[in-house]
Amino acid sequence: MSKIYVTGLGPGAAEQMTVQAKKVLEQCSVIIGYTVYIDLIRKEYPDKIFLSTPMRKEADRCRMAFEEAKKGRDVAMVCSGDAGVYGMAGLICEIGRDEPDVEIEIVPGITAATGGAAVLGAPLMHDFAVISLSDLLTPWEKIEKRLIAAAKADFVICLYNPSSKKRADYLARACDIIMEYRKRETVCGTVRNIGRDGETCEILSLESLHDKQVDMFTTVFIGNSNTMELNGRMVTPRGYKDV
Amino acid sequence: MSKIYVTGLGPGAAEQMTVQAKKVLEQCSVIIGYTVYIDLIRKEYPDKIFLSTPMRKEADRCRMAFEEAKKGRDVAMVCSGDAGVYGMAGLICEIGRDEPDVEIEIVPGITAATGGAAVLGAPLMHDFAVISLSDLLTPWEKIEKRLIAAAKADFVICLYNPSSKKRADYLARACDIIMEYRKRETVCGTVRNIGRDGETCEILSLESLHDKQVDMFTTVFIGNSNTMELNGRMVTPRGYKDV
Repeated sequence: MSKIYVTGLGPGAAEQMTVQAKKVLEQCSVIIGYTVYIDLIRKEYPDKIFLSTPMRKEADRCRMAFEEAKKGRDVAMVCSGDAGVYGMAGLICEIGRDEPDVEIEIVPGITAATGGAAVLGAPLMHDFAVISLSDLLTPWEKIEKRLIAAAKADFVICLYNPSSKKRADYLARACDIIMEYRKRETVCGTVRNIGRDGETCEILSLESLHDKQVDMFTTVFIGNSNTMELNGRMVTPRGYKDV
Repeated sequence: MSKIYVTGLGPGAAEQMTVQAKKVLEQCSVIIGYTVYIDLIRKEYPDKIFLSTPMRKEADRCRMAFEEAKKGRDVAMVCSGDAGVYGMAGLICEIGRDEPDVEIEIVPGITAATGGAAVLGAPLMHDFAVISLSDLLTPWEKIEKRLIAAAKADFVICLYNPSSKKRADYLARACDIIMEYRKRETVCGTVRNIGRDGETCEILSLESLHDKQVDMFTTVFIGNSNTMELNGRMVTPRGYKDV
């Protein structure tokens, strides 16, 4: 039976790929993904069949994977980061319900939360919440409710999709909500282009984050009440030192 | 200047290790970690110096890393999963504040949340909260507050350290709290020994999870109000199908 491997490539699609993801790319004859990620790996695997659809055509891309698998080919369905965090894994499982002849395996990858945290220092050493600010598939009211809950309960918060052309002020709106429950001096961080050329990061206060313009290649971290800046790193202490 | 690489080995310390983590292990002359993880990799790298301390001796282990680095050796400080999620990255950064001659790099790994999610299907396709039930370093009241916040705001919840010998009833207590805000039928999952021999998983209701005895090698997932069981997989839909 041929198989679809829903594979996370990690943030940069290179050194942060797992050994298992690399094997999947080597062994599958077809690699399918969003154009940008396909372009990152195409030159490494000149003998593969590469298929792609633009953004917003996620369901078409998944159906394409099943069509290829039904031709008897093993398929690597690739995503940036982890396929299971706002990625393609869920949709492949949903469509796969009606495709009993195709086996599915999810191959995890480094997601932006942990990849970005490593660039900033150690912001996720304590309980954390991952929230996407994209309201394309989620009503803003639900996003707002989750921001309030996470802020009140002093979670470290990691924001995915903090901005886009149509949603230029969403990060500022999120910061306004969080500032109702947390200090303006709360230590925050941003990382752009994690694991890629031109990777940059910045540590700043929640108040300054409010006024910062970020893009869709940026992941945002808001510390908890104990998060500190230490020698240019964002660090949430876990308390081992006191044990 | 010699360097400490705080390195996550992924859940199973083998195929789910990143290419970068593998390079770090190959290039460092000293590998330091908790005994169990050191034993998982020792035979692969016979020429290395392996150093270890038992559990609860985290600060000693970190200081050991700085001592070795100051002798001019590059050190891989290894953790299971990701070093930045309840791992050693924070403590190394804290101690590193007083060690200006040693460079620190955090090398991310697959954490149990994403590694376990891949085994179960796709539970983390929407906003999620990661909470540790260990009250060794966190007061239980704070953990409880976070459980309530995450349950009320309909986050998918991933529980680390769900149990230990001394805390046999903590998962049941957490389920009781969550059931005040979420249906008893909420789809949940457990994964044990992620990425290792004897990996097992189970999908069950929140009510059944309450009565299940898990151990410290288990990661627990509590779905949001839309999470489903589909062909034996735990899947949180993201809504692409409706676009």
